[in-house]
Amino acid sequence: MIYITRRERFNAAHRLFRSEFSDEKNMAVFGKCSNPNWHGHNYELFVTLRGEVDPDTGFLVNLKALSKLIKTRIVEKIDHKNINLEVDFMKGRMASTENLAIAIWEELENPIQELGSQLHSVKVYESENNYVEYLG
Amino acid sequence: MIYITRRERFNAAHRLFRSEFSDEKNMAVFGKCSNPNWHGHNYELFVTLRGEVDPDTGFLVNLKALSKLIKTRIVEKIDHKNINLEVDFMKGRMASTENLAIAIWEELENPIQELGSQLHSVKVYESENNYVEYLG
Amino acid sequence: MIYITRRERFNAAHRLFRSEFSDEKNMAVFGKCSNPNWHGHNYELFVTLRGEVDPDTGFLVNLKALSKLIKTRIVEKIDHKNINLEVDFMKGRMASTENLAIAIWEELENPIQELGSQLHSVKVYESENNYVEYLG
Amino acid sequence: MIYITRRERFNAAHRLFRSEFSDEKNMAVFGKCSNPNWHGHNYELFVTLRGEVDPDTGFLVNLKALSKLIKTRIVEKIDHKNINLEVDFMKGRMASTENLAIAIWEELENPIQELGSQLHSVKVYESENNYVEYLG
Amino acid sequence: MIYITRRERFNAAHRLFRSEFSDEKNMAVFGKCSNPNWHGHNYELFVTLRGEVDPDTGFLVNLKALSKLIKTRIVEKIDHKNINLEVDFMKGRMASTENLAIAIWEELENPIQELGSQLHSVKVYESENNYVEYLG
Amino acid sequence: MIYITRRERFNAAHRLFRSEFSDEKNMAVFGKCSNPNWHGHNYELFVTLRGEVDPDTGFLVNLKALSKLIKTRIVEKIDHKNINLEVDFMKGRMASTENLAIAIWEELENPIQELGSQLHSVKVYESENNYVEYLG
Repeated sequence: MIYITRRERFNAAHRLFRSEFSDEKNMAVFGKCSNPNWHGHNYELFVTLRGEVDPDTGFLVNLKALSKLIKTRIVEKIDHKNINLEVDFMKGRMASTENLAIAIWEELENPIQELGSQLHSVKVYESENNYVEYLG
Repeated sequence: MIYITRRERFNAAHRLFRSEFSDEKNMAVFGKCSNPNWHGHNYELFVTLRGEVDPDTGFLVNLKALSKLIKTRIVEKIDHKNINLEVDFMKGRMASTENLAIAIWEELENPIQELGSQLHSVKVYESENNYVEYLG
Repeated sequence: MIYITRRERFNAAHRLFRSEFSDEKNMAVFGKCSNPNWHGHNYELFVTLRGEVDPDTGFLVNLKALSKLIKTRIVEKIDHKNINLEVDFMKGRMASTENLAIAIWEELENPIQELGSQLHSVKVYESENNYVEYLG
Repeated sequence: MIYITRRERFNAAHRLFRSEFSDEKNMAVFGKCSNPNWHGHNYELFVTLRGEVDPDTGFLVNLKALSKLIKTRIVEKIDHKNINLEVDFMKGRMASTENLAIAIWEELENPIQELGSQLHSVKVYESENNYVEYLG
Repeated sequence: MIYITRRERFNAAHRLFRSEFSDEKNMAVFGKCSNPNWHGHNYELFVTLRGEVDPDTGFLVNLKALSKLIKTRIVEKIDHKNINLEVDFMKGRMASTENLAIAIWEELENPIQELGSQLHSVKVYESENNYVEYLG
Repeated sequence: MIYITRRERFNAAHRLFRSEFSDEKNMAVFGKCSNPNWHGHNYELFVTLRGEVDPDTGFLVNLKALSKLIKTRIVEKIDHKNINLEVDFMKGRMASTENLAIAIWEELENPIQELGSQLHSVKVYESENNYVEYLG
């Protein structure tokens, strides 16, 4: 069993809040992350696949195809966007890093199987001090 | 002559646009950075001072005091904020990295002189691939 | 199952040695790490928790509370300290990175359960070339 | 159970191709990585061991001995070399990162047991965006 | 005066040698960098421009145009190539990092003036431990 | 004019204090950096030389010779040592990063001239957030 990881990056705005709360209550629960005027991050995304090495190519997966898939399915939909307002796969979810990792997993799981491989892990860095990993 | 540098970080939302332009024209001029719903970054700020070493302390400047000054004057005003809407020292300026570096210089120049030192450079990283440096 | 990681940092002095050995024997066994006058490191600490996402907040854990807990229980006791002489949770242990990771696990396991979450991993970087991970 | 990781680095040239293919067919399958005139990388190698801490030393393994073993068995054979032409443990394998990780595992597994420890993982970074991990 | 920097990356093979020397003499002068079978690096290129901020855009230069220029003039010619054999702007020069920085300066100086800006510095990292900067 | 930089690293213990002060007064002036039981850092040292490229080698300086010089003159004297007690070139100086940079400059200036090159800058990182640069 071998694992291969591809890093991609995106920059986005977001806000942590519940619409049924007042701004004051959101501030009490979510702190400065609830700022109604938004803030943002340079996110780093690490997508790990597992599988067997193809003896003809020496590859587990063609990395160019994997990078293109992540860009089409994730990066183009979220880069330079507002996660709360504009990202279809985050509709109806709190815009936390945890939920981002889960939603990205759900977006990538099937297309990666169609590539002939298997998704193992989605890791999302929100900053140099915080990251989330989801294993399905 | 010796130089000392302190790094601080902030996360913020912004948008590049001119209000007299339509969204379409802003997209043509500023690309995806003009997204009306904002995007954001993890900014890194490097503030460099120059001067002589104080023989009593071995310091050019007390780094704790310098860090506190940068936090009070800059980070607390911009971290988890919207640069276009909420940051007093960016009022009336395009929210570009270039203008951020210039505005931060203007905010820090005098207070650093009051600390007994001299501002030499303000460097702002918008991403791992782009940064701006301003020397006054 | 989802995993969230928080990075904290501390700078400390230490020495690897056995008190029943001579300085020469300590040098033979532990090399330059046994220097009787100490040396030190910028340590990086990665604390990983696992659990379920709270649907109300989108969080596995409130990162501000986690950061505060790590600072109170670990960083304030070890930062700018001598690991051999001054750190209560390292009393009676060799000041190796392995033992640091184990001791930090023991300090954090219960308080993290009181936060409503579960400790998954403690990783300690001694340098860019060496790190230790402990999973309990 | 505790894990310790040592990083080493090497710079090497390589090419992805099948000798029974024409240059054109290799380009179609392997893209620019098949350039007949070679290209190269700064590889980073992370070797992780698992085991119990020796109560006499506080170590899982003597890192100096581990570093020397990796240098003798791997780095001296591949650093500043052509992976396709000059590296004995890559003979007869496609020079992919996947195969590099597997071959390095095979080179290190026994010598690390002779050190009294157990190999857990070999991770090879080909660039800041791509890495492979092999767990045996 | 303000400075803006763009990072780009390329992976390439090279060799340091003089064709009038024997392999043995090249090894004596250039060490393992003279390996006749080549080796390679992940190079990082930092291109710094200086100028005035355009008050209409808040930009010193459009970074997208700068990135495209560096990719067209440099990266596409050298990425996944052999610096000694295939890179027109390195013809007739020793393939050292020093000469790379000088040659890249010469390739970029005029096109950057045509962009309406001025080249200030070309910095090339060959590894995490070595880099060269050329200021013209 | 071209600049070449070599990075080296060392780990050391130190303390900021004046012997004529009480521990309390040292704490008031230098904060936790005055801990009488020491603390320590992973220091990173960047040594920059300037000069002309030798047309025979393509080098400004032989990096192997430069690395060896820095190791002999600096790293071997300070790595895994106590800066206040054991480092000859820091005798009689406060063990601040500023003084480290100045002292390293003084140690390297002449030997680098004997190498046929010229010292341009000594940069010392004490942590990811603080560094000092000295230009002579």
